[in-house]
Amino acid sequence: MEAFFSILRYNSAMTTLIKNALVIPMTEREHYEKSDILIKDGKIERIGTIDGKADETIDASSMIALPSFVNAHTHLSMTLMRNYKDTCENLQDWLSEIFPIEDKLCDEDIYWSSLLGSAELIESGCTTFADMYFFAWNTVKAARKAGIRGIIGQTFMGDAEDAEHRIREYEPRLREEIGNDDMFRIDAAVHAIYTSTPDCYAKTAEWAASIGARMNTHIAETRKEVDDSIRKYGKSPVELLDSLGVFSTVPTYGAHCVHLSDNDIDILSSRSVSVVHNPSSNMKLASGAAPIMKMRKKGINIALGTDGASSNNNLSMMKEMNTAALLATLSEMTPSAARPYDILEMATINGARALGLEDRIGTIEPGKDADIVLINTDDVNMTPLNDPFSAVIFSSDRKNIDTVFCKGRKLLEKGNLLTIDKDEAIRKTNERWQDILRR
Amino acid sequence: MEAFFSILRYNSAMTTLIKNALVIPMTEREHYEKSDILIKDGKIERIGTIDGKADETIDASSMIALPSFVNAHTHLSMTLMRNYKDTCENLQDWLSEIFPIEDKLCDEDIYWSSLLGSAELIESGCTTFADMYFFAWNTVKAARKAGIRGIIGQTFMGDAEDAEHRIREYEPRLREEIGNDDMFRIDAAVHAIYTSTPDCYAKTAEWAASIGARMNTHIAETRKEVDDSIRKYGKSPVELLDSLGVFSTVPTYGAHCVHLSDNDIDILSSRSVSVVHNPSSNMKLASGAAPIMKMRKKGINIALGTDGASSNNNLSMMKEMNTAALLATLSEMTPSAARPYDILEMATINGARALGLEDRIGTIEPGKDADIVLINTDDVNMTPLNDPFSAVIFSSDRKNIDTVFCKGRKLLEKGNLLTIDKDEAIRKTNERWQDILRR
Repeated sequence: MEAFFSILRYNSAMTTLIKNALVIPMTEREHYEKSDILIKDGKIERIGTIDGKADETIDASSMIALPSFVNAHTHLSMTLMRNYKDTCENLQDWLSEIFPIEDKLCDEDIYWSSLLGSAELIESGCTTFADMYFFAWNTVKAARKAGIRGIIGQTFMGDAEDAEHRIREYEPRLREEIGNDDMFRIDAAVHAIYTSTPDCYAKTAEWAASIGARMNTHIAETRKEVDDSIRKYGKSPVELLDSLGVFSTVPTYGAHCVHLSDNDIDILSSRSVSVVHNPSSNMKLASGAAPIMKMRKKGINIALGTDGASSNNNLSMMKEMNTAALLATLSEMTPSAARPYDILEMATINGARALGLEDRIGTIEPGKDADIVLINTDDVNMTPLNDPFSAVIFSSDRKNIDTVFCKGRKLLEKGNLLTIDKDEAIRKTNERWQDILRR
Repeated sequence: MEAFFSILRYNSAMTTLIKNALVIPMTEREHYEKSDILIKDGKIERIGTIDGKADETIDASSMIALPSFVNAHTHLSMTLMRNYKDTCENLQDWLSEIFPIEDKLCDEDIYWSSLLGSAELIESGCTTFADMYFFAWNTVKAARKAGIRGIIGQTFMGDAEDAEHRIREYEPRLREEIGNDDMFRIDAAVHAIYTSTPDCYAKTAEWAASIGARMNTHIAETRKEVDDSIRKYGKSPVELLDSLGVFSTVPTYGAHCVHLSDNDIDILSSRSVSVVHNPSSNMKLASGAAPIMKMRKKGINIALGTDGASSNNNLSMMKEMNTAALLATLSEMTPSAARPYDILEMATINGARALGLEDRIGTIEPGKDADIVLINTDDVNMTPLNDPFSAVIFSSDRKNIDTVFCKGRKLLEKGNLLTIDKDEAIRKTNERWQDILRR
C-alpha cells in the first residue's frame, strides 16, 4: 500500500531541494562542503546555496550526502541461499552444496529473491549493481520495481556451443524485458575459468563487443584456481584470459582477483581491466586478501562488491566498506594504506568507472543523474562527527541510512522502503525457499 | 521524557514473558530451541513452554534471544574522540595526539561521553562492559542511568608512587559512587608496560587482590611494544608481567594480545589469564591479527571487546563479532577456524568468565540475571534465516537489535532507548567536545 502511494506520488519531472547537507561530492580528494542540492528531472541541477521553492524540500542539516553506492559484484538471487551451509571448508565444497540447489530454481524464485536483494541494497545506500546470475530477466523486473539500476549479466558457463545456445535462448528474453529502459544494460558474465572453457570466453567476448557490452567474470579467487590454471594451461587465470584476447576485445571487470602475480597486475593495468574487490566474501571463504594497494599503485581501477548473500552473508555496502578499510590496513600493516576516502571512491566513482557509467553516476555534480544517499549523523554512533570520511567508513551502519534517491526518485525515507513492500518480499522469499527445499 | 516514564514503569519485581523466541541459550554447543522465557525479579525464572499471565508479554516469534553481549574491553569516555585524527601512522603517533586532549578532561565530559557510549552499547545489544579510563565515578553514574553493568577500571599509569596516590585519591570517590550497587565492581586497570613501571604493576596487583578485584591491562598490542620490552627487560610483556607475579596474584584479563610467542601463550594458559580480542582496533591501527585459534587450542578463555570509539570507531558488538569471524577465517585460511558459535561464545559467556561474572550472566538459564537481547529476524537482511548462528554473526547489524534487557529491566524497545534521552546525550556530548577543543 505504501509502495502504491509512492508510485502515485512519483513524477520524474518533479524538483527536490536537499537543504544544508554535508555534501561529499567525490569530485575532489577529501573535499566536503555544507551545501544544498537541487534535483530536477531526475538529474542534479545545481549545488550551492539554493533558495526558492521545490516540489519537495528535505532538511538535511544532520545528513551527509554522498553519491549512492555502486555494488559492482553481486548475485542478487542468491539471497535465497543466505546462511545455507555457509561454513564449508572451501569455495569448491561450498559450490558443490550450492549447484544442486541452483538446478531447481525457476522464474518466480529469481524474481522474489532479486526483489529482496534490491531492498537490502537500497537499505544500505546502494542504487546500482552489477549482477551475474541465471534467468536474469526476472532480476530486471525486480530491480525495475525497486527503482534501482542494474548491469545485468547474461551468464555463461560451459563451452562455446553452450554459450551460443544461451545467447540464442536467453538474450531475446532479456532484451524484451529491458526494452529501451536506460536503467539496465546487458553485460557478458562468464562464471570463471574453472567452469567455462577458453572458447567460451573467446566467443562471449566477441558477442559482448558486438552489442556494446562489457565482460564481468570471476578471476583468481582462490589459490587452487590459480594452481589448477597453471597446471592445465601453463598460464595464470589473468594470463589465460589475456592470451584469449578477452581484455583487448572488451572492457572487463574482474571480481575477487585475490591471487595475482606481479605480471598479472601488469597485465590488468595495461589492459585497463577494473578489479572488483570483495573483502568479506574473500575473508569468509578463506580465499585470501586481494593486493589492492599494489594494484592501486599500478593505476588499476578498484571497485567494491558484496558478492552474493550466500557467501557474505549480506548485501550491505556499509559493512563492505568497513571491512575493506580494516582489511587494507591490516594487510599493508599501515593505517594510511587505504584512507577512508579511498574506500569511498571504490564504493562510488570507481564502481561507476568499472561499469562504464562514470558519465552518469558516481559523483554529485550538475548534469549527473541524482543517485544520492543521505546518511544520518544525528545518532549515537556518529557523535561527535569529527572526520566525516572516517565517520562513514568506520562508525556508520545500515541504521544510519536515512534517504536514498535513484535518478531523482526517492526509494528510502527515514530508513523505510518506498518502492518495495518489505513484508511481502520477506514472506514470498521465505515461501519460495521452503518450496525449493521440498523440490 | 521518554526516559522518565520508563523509570516510572520499571519495577524490579515485575514479571516479563518472552513468547516463542528462537532461544540460543549458549549453554550447549550450537543448540537452539523455540521457547518462552519467564523473567521474574530481574532473573530468568523459567525456560520452556510457559502459559499464564505476566505483567508484560512480548511476542518474540520473529526474534532470536541471546544472552546480551559482554564488551570486555572499552574506554567508554573516548567516544568524545571518535573520528578525531584517527588515521595516524601507528599507535604511538595516535596516542601522542590523544594524550594532550585527555589532560583537559573534566567530570562533566566523562559523564556525558560515558552516557553516549552506554547508549551505543545498548543499541548493539550489549549490557556489560569492562572499562579503563579516568574519573571513572562519572562512568558509574552514566552506566547506572543507562541501566547497564560496569566493571570499572581504577586506572593506573606511571610508577608505584603514582599508583598509591591514585588509590588514595580516587578509590574513595569510586567506592562512594558505587555504594552497594552490585551492578558495578572496581578492577585494577593498568594501562600498559610502556606507560606503567614494573613496580606499578606489582603494587596494583597486590591492591587488586586485597579488594577482590581483577587486573585489566593492555598486553602485547603492537610489535614495537614487544621489541621495546625485550630490549628493556629482556622479557616479552607476558613474561615480564608473569615475572612480576601479576598473573599469580590476581585473576587477569589482557586486551589485544596480538604479538605472542609460543611461550607467552603457554604462560597465559597456565596462569588462566583471559584474553580480550579487539579485532577492529587491531586491524584499524595496523597492530596485527591476534593468534586466537592458537590460544583457543591451548584452552585460553577468549572474550571480545570493541576498544574505545576513538580507535574503532564505534562500540558496536554486532560489528565486532562480524569482524572477529572474518578475521579468524582469513588468518587461519580455513572457514571452519572459528565457527559463528565460537564467536558468540566470545561475546557472551567467555566475556562473563573473563570478568568473573559467569555465575550471574553470559547464558540464558534459570537463576541467572535476565540480561537478554532480542534480535529481529523479520528483516530483509535476515531472510531466509537458515542457520541462526551465521545469521547473527554474518548477516545482522545494529538495525536488527530490537529489545534489550539488563537484570530484567527493558533498556531498548523496537530499537529505541528507554533509559537514555538520546537527543540530550548527543547534544551534550557535542557541546562538551567543542568546549574541550577550545580549552
